[in-house]
Amino acid sequence: MQQVNEFQIEGRNAVIEAFRSGKTIDRLFILDGCQDGPISTIKREARKQDTVIKYVAKERLDQMSETGKHQGVIAVMAAYEYSELEDIFKKAEEKGEDPFIFLLDNIEDPHNLGAIIRTANLAGAHGVIIPKNRAVGLTATVARTSAGALNYTPVVKVTNLSQTIEDLKKRGLWFVCADMDGDVMYRCNLKGPIGLVIGNEGEGVGRLVKEKCDFVASIPMKGDIDSLNASVAAGVLAYEIVRQRFQ
Amino acid sequence: MQQVNEFQIEGRNAVIEAFRSGKTIDRLFILDGCQDGPISTIKREARKQDTVIKYVAKERLDQMSETGKHQGVIAVMAAYEYSELEDIFKKAEEKGEDPFIFLLDNIEDPHNLGAIIRTANLAGAHGVIIPKNRAVGLTATVARTSAGALNYTPVVKVTNLSQTIEDLKKRGLWFVCADMDGDVMYRCNLKGPIGLVIGNEGEGVGRLVKEKCDFVASIPMKGDIDSLNASVAAGVLAYEIVRQRFQ
Repeated sequence: MQQVNEFQIEGRNAVIEAFRSGKTIDRLFILDGCQDGPISTIKREARKQDTVIKYVAKERLDQMSETGKHQGVIAVMAAYEYSELEDIFKKAEEKGEDPFIFLLDNIEDPHNLGAIIRTANLAGAHGVIIPKNRAVGLTATVARTSAGALNYTPVVKVTNLSQTIEDLKKRGLWFVCADMDGDVMYRCNLKGPIGLVIGNEGEGVGRLVKEKCDFVASIPMKGDIDSLNASVAAGVLAYEIVRQRFQ
Repeated sequence: MQQVNEFQIEGRNAVIEAFRSGKTIDRLFILDGCQDGPISTIKREARKQDTVIKYVAKERLDQMSETGKHQGVIAVMAAYEYSELEDIFKKAEEKGEDPFIFLLDNIEDPHNLGAIIRTANLAGAHGVIIPKNRAVGLTATVARTSAGALNYTPVVKVTNLSQTIEDLKKRGLWFVCADMDGDVMYRCNLKGPIGLVIGNEGEGVGRLVKEKCDFVASIPMKGDIDSLNASVAAGVLAYEIVRQRFQ
């Protein structure tokens, strides 16, 4: 199970800075009646992010404060801890199943990341691997969009996705990525220990990562536009794997 | 093809009112340098909705204005026109295919609606039917999330979804809805003229609508949580239909 830590940020500048640097704040406590400029700025940022605001009395803030210098505002953030690769293999072993892992090549939208972790959980995948740089991390938005899946499905952060694929191949996994120029997914053999690689929203799977994959599978496109939403594409491919593994 | 009309709203109160009533504004033109209270309110609402703001000179606003009373602000909205049921049947006929229609039983999130229209287009569905009341309509957010699909896939608004299902049954369609207690989707026969019913994000498919369906199909759930995101579930089911129809 994912470990969740909460930590808090206190004081006007620190909270404004946290919002502006793109951190996702879970809950915001503001001194009731406080209406000056910096507080208005904080409220505006909070509304942009749909952060829950609670107006509380000074006594409550004083009690919550860890620094004694809350200046009328305390923000609470949730930080989800990452798992290790071994946690994924352990999960597969416990279930007596071949490992089934999602690898996300730079998913940028936290809603997509959350929806994909939710899908990974329900499709019976044993874990999700994301790259350390560039991609979005496990923010409160991701946790919320995952609808609780983040509490069950291990998420592992790695430095280099291509290298990780190499390492996992040595442990018997096959890798499939989705791309337009691949074989129609219904005709690929997706049984056995498998890693499903999902590309970035705009650019798809990176060249280096794609070269490491054993199969390139394509989702049949019958329409007028280019591509499915990344989390929908992940769901469609994951359930083709489910069909082949479990039926 | 969906017809797109643009229309504009002018003046401070009218624009504030448009934002507050939940209308989605596509672009906002504000007189450069204008900083008073109502304009700040409008900017705040615009940021909440991720509306593009353009700061322009008075001459530009005067030129754009249809009323001559812009008061420093003009909002441009896009309104997508709905299609008729016959447009869907015509599309199927043109392609020489059995009709394949999505019916959305009260999808509330515009991002989900957009993603589902995108999926409908790519899965080769001939149209999407949504109920007139309660559900979200074709806002600019839906258009953006549909990634252009709204320009190709007819969307029809109906007063009563159950009645529409009855009418379409007389034209030879079968209806399948997704629910946990159904038969595993891989074992349902989803060929022929078909309507795929997708339920609301929280409550699933309504009882009355479900009773009208010929099949209840379930997506296998191998995980710890309850349900997939609505647009992911729509994608997974749609592609099971694609597999059965086109392979």
